[in-house]
Amino acid sequence: MTAVVIVEPQAKGNVGTVARAMKNFGFDDLKLIDPPAIEPGDEAYGFAGHAREDVLPSHDVLTFDEVIERYHTVGFTAHTGNDERRHVRYPFCSPASLAESLVADAGRFEAPIALVFGREDTGLANDELARMDEICSIPASAEYPVLNLGQAATIALYELRVLADAPTQHAPRADATVTATEGLYDQFDALLGAIDHPEEKRPKANRLLRRVFGRARLTGREASSLRGGFRRATELAETSRRRSRSVDDRR
Amino acid sequence: MTAVVIVEPQAKGNVGTVARAMKNFGFDDLKLIDPPAIEPGDEAYGFAGHAREDVLPSHDVLTFDEVIERYHTVGFTAHTGNDERRHVRYPFCSPASLAESLVADAGRFEAPIALVFGREDTGLANDELARMDEICSIPASAEYPVLNLGQAATIALYELRVLADAPTQHAPRADATVTATEGLYDQFDALLGAIDHPEEKRPKANRLLRRVFGRARLTGREASSLRGGFRRATELAETSRRRSRSVDDRR
Repeated sequence: MTAVVIVEPQAKGNVGTVARAMKNFGFDDLKLIDPPAIEPGDEAYGFAGHAREDVLPSHDVLTFDEVIERYHTVGFTAHTGNDERRHVRYPFCSPASLAESLVADAGRFEAPIALVFGREDTGLANDELARMDEICSIPASAEYPVLNLGQAATIALYELRVLADAPTQHAPRADATVTATEGLYDQFDALLGAIDHPEEKRPKANRLLRRVFGRARLTGREASSLRGGFRRATELAETSRRRSRSVDDRR
Repeated sequence: MTAVVIVEPQAKGNVGTVARAMKNFGFDDLKLIDPPAIEPGDEAYGFAGHAREDVLPSHDVLTFDEVIERYHTVGFTAHTGNDERRHVRYPFCSPASLAESLVADAGRFEAPIALVFGREDTGLANDELARMDEICSIPASAEYPVLNLGQAATIALYELRVLADAPTQHAPRADATVTATEGLYDQFDALLGAIDHPEEKRPKANRLLRRVFGRARLTGREASSLRGGFRRATELAETSRRRSRSVDDRR
C-alpha cells in the first residue's frame, strides 16, 4: 500500500485537496507531519469531496524520522539544481519515469512506498531531500515551475495511479499480458542472435527495447503483431547465416 | 496558441487555480464564459500564484457560441457513458492520447485549439458536449472519478504541455529528431518488404509501429539503435530471400 505524506502543511484546504486527489486515483493512506488540527466541518473537509468520508478522517500523524525509517521514500521538489535557487543538486526523475521504475521494481523494496510532499511555501528542505530514497520533479515551465501543493500532489497521484491499481471509469484497455510481452522480448533476443549482434552488447539492446515498449504500454494486439514480425525476421536472418556458413565450409 | 475555456465558473478560487496551472505549463490564453466578476485582491488572485501578474488579469469573457465558432474544441468530462450517470454516450479519449493526436494533427485544424472545462457542480451539459469537436476524460477511480475543476484542469494542462511547448526546468531530453524517427520508420518498412509481409497489410503494420514508438517518445539514441538492428535484420532477410530465389531458379 502506497502512503501519501505531507510535511508540515499550513493550509487545511490543501490537505483536503490532496485527500480528494488520493480518492480520485485510488489511494487511501494519508500521513501528516506536524499538521494543523483537522476537524469535521473545517476547510480541509470542504475541499476533500467524497474523501471527507474516509481518506481524510482516517489520516495519521507521525514524525519525519518515522517516515524515513518505515518507508521507501520519494520526495517531490520543483527545484532540481538546474537553476540557481537550489545549490545542492540531486539526481531526480519525472513522475512518468518514476511510475515506470516503481512498477518494474515492485517487490524489490522491503518497505512500502511513501510519496512525500513539502510545505506550501518552501517545499522540502535540502536536508530532508538528502534523506529520501528517490527525488521526483514534475516538468513544468522553466519560467514558473513551482506548483501549488495540491496541484503537484494531484499530478503525482494521477501519474502514479498504477500503484493504487483501482479500476477506472474508462473501459479497460487491452494491455498486453506479461506472458505476451516476455514472449516479445525473448523473440527480440533471438533476433539479436540471428543478426549476430555482439554478445556483450545484447543485454543493453534488450534493456533498451524493454524500456521503450514499457513506456509505450503495448496492447495485446501490438505485442503479438510485433512478435510475429520479429519471428519472421529471425527465421530469415538465421537461414541467411546458415547458408553463408555452409558456403564458407565448402570453400 | 491553445486557449483554456471555463464555462460558468462559480468559485473564483478555481479560476485562480486554473490560471496558475496554465502559467506552470506555459499556457496564457484564458477565456471565461459568464464568470463572476474577477478583481485584483479577490480569491481568484489569491490562488493564481504568479499568474496573477499576466494570465489572470488578461483573461477574456466570451459566449459559448463564440467558442464553438472560433475554435477546435475539446470538452472535458468525468462521465463517459460507461456508468449510469450519463445517458448519452460519446466517443472519448484520455489526455495522453489527446496530446498524441493533437501533436500528430498539428496544422490540420484551421482553428486554434480550445480546452473547455465545465462548471464545478455539473460539469459540461450533454447538449454542450454534443457541440464539441472532441471529448476528453481523465482516467480516475471508478468509485470516485469526479475531479475538482482546478485539479482536472491541472492534469489536462500537464498532459497537454507539449502544445504550449515552453522550456521546462528539467534539462532537455534528447528526443529523437523527426529525421531520425522517419529514418527508423523507413527502415521498418524495408524490413517488412524483406520478410515478405503481405503488401496490403504493410500500411497497418507501419501505423502500429508509429503509434507504439510515438507513445514511447524515443530518444535519439534509442531511435538510432533500433534502426541499426532493423537494418541488419533487413539485410540478412534480403540475402536469405535472394538465395532462396536463386536456388529456385536453378531447380
